[in-house]
Amino acid sequence: MRLTVDSINQNVRRAQYAVRGELAVKSEEFRARLTKGDESLPFKQVISANIGNPQQLDQKPITFFRQVCSLLENPELLNNEDALINGFGYKTDVIARAKWLLKQVGSIGAYSASSGVPAIKQSIATFLERRDGFPADPAHIYLSAGASSGVNTLLNVICADKSVGVLVPIPQYPLYTATLSLLNATCVPYNLDESRAWGTDMETIKKAYQKAKAEGVDVRSIVIINPGNPTGASLPEEDVRAVLDFASQENLVVMADEVYQTNVFVGKFHSFKGVLRKMQQETPGKYDSVELASLHSISKGMVGECGHRGGYFELVGFDADVEANIYKFVSIMLCAPVVGQCLVELMVNPPKPGEPSYDLYRREYDAIHEGLRERATALHRAFAQMEGVECAEPQGAMYLFPTIRLPQRAIEAAAAEGRSADELYCLRLLEATGICVVPGSGFGQAEGTLHFRTTFLAPGTEWVDSIIKFHKEFLDKYR
Amino acid sequence: MRLTVDSINQNVRRAQYAVRGELAVKSEEFRARLTKGDESLPFKQVISANIGNPQQLDQKPITFFRQVCSLLENPELLNNEDALINGFGYKTDVIARAKWLLKQVGSIGAYSASSGVPAIKQSIATFLERRDGFPADPAHIYLSAGASSGVNTLLNVICADKSVGVLVPIPQYPLYTATLSLLNATCVPYNLDESRAWGTDMETIKKAYQKAKAEGVDVRSIVIINPGNPTGASLPEEDVRAVLDFASQENLVVMADEVYQTNVFVGKFHSFKGVLRKMQQETPGKYDSVELASLHSISKGMVGECGHRGGYFELVGFDADVEANIYKFVSIMLCAPVVGQCLVELMVNPPKPGEPSYDLYRREYDAIHEGLRERATALHRAFAQMEGVECAEPQGAMYLFPTIRLPQRAIEAAAAEGRSADELYCLRLLEATGICVVPGSGFGQAEGTLHFRTTFLAPGTEWVDSIIKFHKEFLDKYR
Repeated sequence: MRLTVDSINQNVRRAQYAVRGELAVKSEEFRARLTKGDESLPFKQVISANIGNPQQLDQKPITFFRQVCSLLENPELLNNEDALINGFGYKTDVIARAKWLLKQVGSIGAYSASSGVPAIKQSIATFLERRDGFPADPAHIYLSAGASSGVNTLLNVICADKSVGVLVPIPQYPLYTATLSLLNATCVPYNLDESRAWGTDMETIKKAYQKAKAEGVDVRSIVIINPGNPTGASLPEEDVRAVLDFASQENLVVMADEVYQTNVFVGKFHSFKGVLRKMQQETPGKYDSVELASLHSISKGMVGECGHRGGYFELVGFDADVEANIYKFVSIMLCAPVVGQCLVELMVNPPKPGEPSYDLYRREYDAIHEGLRERATALHRAFAQMEGVECAEPQGAMYLFPTIRLPQRAIEAAAAEGRSADELYCLRLLEATGICVVPGSGFGQAEGTLHFRTTFLAPGTEWVDSIIKFHKEFLDKYR
Repeated sequence: MRLTVDSINQNVRRAQYAVRGELAVKSEEFRARLTKGDESLPFKQVISANIGNPQQLDQKPITFFRQVCSLLENPELLNNEDALINGFGYKTDVIARAKWLLKQVGSIGAYSASSGVPAIKQSIATFLERRDGFPADPAHIYLSAGASSGVNTLLNVICADKSVGVLVPIPQYPLYTATLSLLNATCVPYNLDESRAWGTDMETIKKAYQKAKAEGVDVRSIVIINPGNPTGASLPEEDVRAVLDFASQENLVVMADEVYQTNVFVGKFHSFKGVLRKMQQETPGKYDSVELASLHSISKGMVGECGHRGGYFELVGFDADVEANIYKFVSIMLCAPVVGQCLVELMVNPPKPGEPSYDLYRREYDAIHEGLRERATALHRAFAQMEGVECAEPQGAMYLFPTIRLPQRAIEAAAAEGRSADELYCLRLLEATGICVVPGSGFGQAEGTLHFRTTFLAPGTEWVDSIIKFHKEFLDKYR
């Protein structure tokens, strides 16, 4: 055997990605058994609450988006517009948008330019101007295969070697730690403040930064996930300002992961780009050198098109030669999936009031938003009645991240199996109920605390009741 | 400025990827100027012969594939089958396939399992069994975003550090050298034999291997691109056998890039998997330990759906724990684009004789194959009449890779501009004719030789005449 776990790239071996790890694999095995008619399991369905995968659960795709995509896939349908309109209820704006996109991309089966279809980059720039009230330049926008691929690109360019550190929130979406492991770069963790609904605490960030610096780490960048994953936090403007001010002082590249920017239930979303431009306007000169990369995606929000792998990132303040290297890096993988690029265009430029598809679009969009809020609230209420469970009010994203306090005997039982206690809890939950969630250890958590992350995407309340019942039995068993 | 070209990841800086480099960027600028009505250029259109991008040029997508995809994008269309059939000419097998795929994937907007949709992996296994006459196991098949992403995964796992070397053919598709640069691993180049239509020469391979080994390089793997890119070679079975025998002796992981397996004009395609299984059958025990990864894609062949980013790789003989790490690596990027996965299914399981869509499918497929052969032959004939140009007979893939002999004064003029002579030639060709090809230096070439790679995808003969005319003028200028 040429390749063994001892001889392969040890950076790959060390990387951890619990969202799709042992529990997820096991849940897929259960699903396969149920599909084959296995009746020996104590549940009738697997609920994948481990991953923000809206369309796997209840979320229907937005009609306008998918009608346009059907025409992009088969432009021959445009040869019979009457049948589209009368037989299938397509509106004229669906047809017009599909024709316009086809004119821009040629065939969606062709590679696009490496950084994306120029007209789509222009649409994104227009959206950013509307969102932030400040100009955006399509030349600094790069389409990507979901935000993950954008994060991969940026960390690959930023991280030169082991001496380079990146400040990463704890808990975090494990893409960041996994990618830093792959690059053999240093993760500089900073804890989010659970007592303040998982907000950023500047003192904690500064301490983490100073400590790493004192240890000789060349800290170059800070990652912020807002709204937060796995925490569901939504940062107020002053937190965004404080991070930008710190980044400016310490000369850190800001990576703003803003994929949940429309999943906000409390307050409003403050984009790093918009806040930075405001700060630059208020104090001319002071913040000009800030380097900011902000990422967005079609996978989340009311769009929920993860399977199409679409997203983009915008660069602000980057050196031109560095950008040339970013361009080269993305070009090696040729281009982001072109349907995904078109969905980005549809996401940032949806039907407008007065247009034929607007009413349906609005209705669908609002119903998804409201449904998510309701489910988040119901789940939050359920956690409130569970012994030893505490959970911040749902503010945004698609997740709740409750603290769980488990009996000492559960912690010992877990240790005997070589597991952390939250891992054991999540494993037993899966085995008993078919519900798959992710232990807090998969995202990182403050020493001595235990959590799990669950999405609130699954419909109905039955599964929530199953969690309550399981929780009680688990506590009773180990009490 | 935090990030400069001197401080970023120098592996990224060192990576080279000419297929989408300076010339490609310049050609896009020309295209944008033409679109804006600029009449100052000496040509009326840009012909992108630099990249195998069939649908950007003349190749139409296969109707069956795109009809199915339109239904996957908008399953609501299935609510009116009569209108689909009578208004748009959809056949019943299109509808049945779409329903079946939707049942397997749920929504194409949802993430699939990390390694791909189980039913699609099964379809691929069935295809491989039919193609090779030997069983294939879906558990060892991984869907990917084009073959590029598969190569990236495999090299990431194989390459532990700088001491690890991978044998790469020269000339090669620069994805390999670029990815090895990113991983800071060692490229061990072996020259293909231009005098034998760019076949593999075992003596050359062995010498390259021994030399690297003597220099302390831990050579772990050998890359074979068959049919060849950029060379267009198609390997006879004995070459495939010889490589496998060598890999078995020296304990090398074989990476077989077989994305052009249906683009074969001379002889037939011999898959590494099929030949390996035959060798294992003929000499029991001897070849059991060979580790083989073979890659395929929807981007090439008669499918040509590059923009959809679909592909897969199959692993044979890999250690289970190593595969677990490969699984983890692909899971970090979540999953391959789901429409792309469905197109893989359609590619490996197209309409069969007697099914309603078969005749049209066959006609379209054969017409594309024949068209490519005709254009390859026409281009080959044109090169034959050009002074100082020699080109092997087109055997496969989508490329010709002629040798060009340029006058000493051209070589000097190029050097004065800090370019190689083939780069200067290709740049001047682009500026004079709008035709974008890639200099041989972008793929590697034997010392002292000059080449360029052109696809033979562009329709018509006018552009070929432009190359002939340009070539004569270029030679006259520097003679």
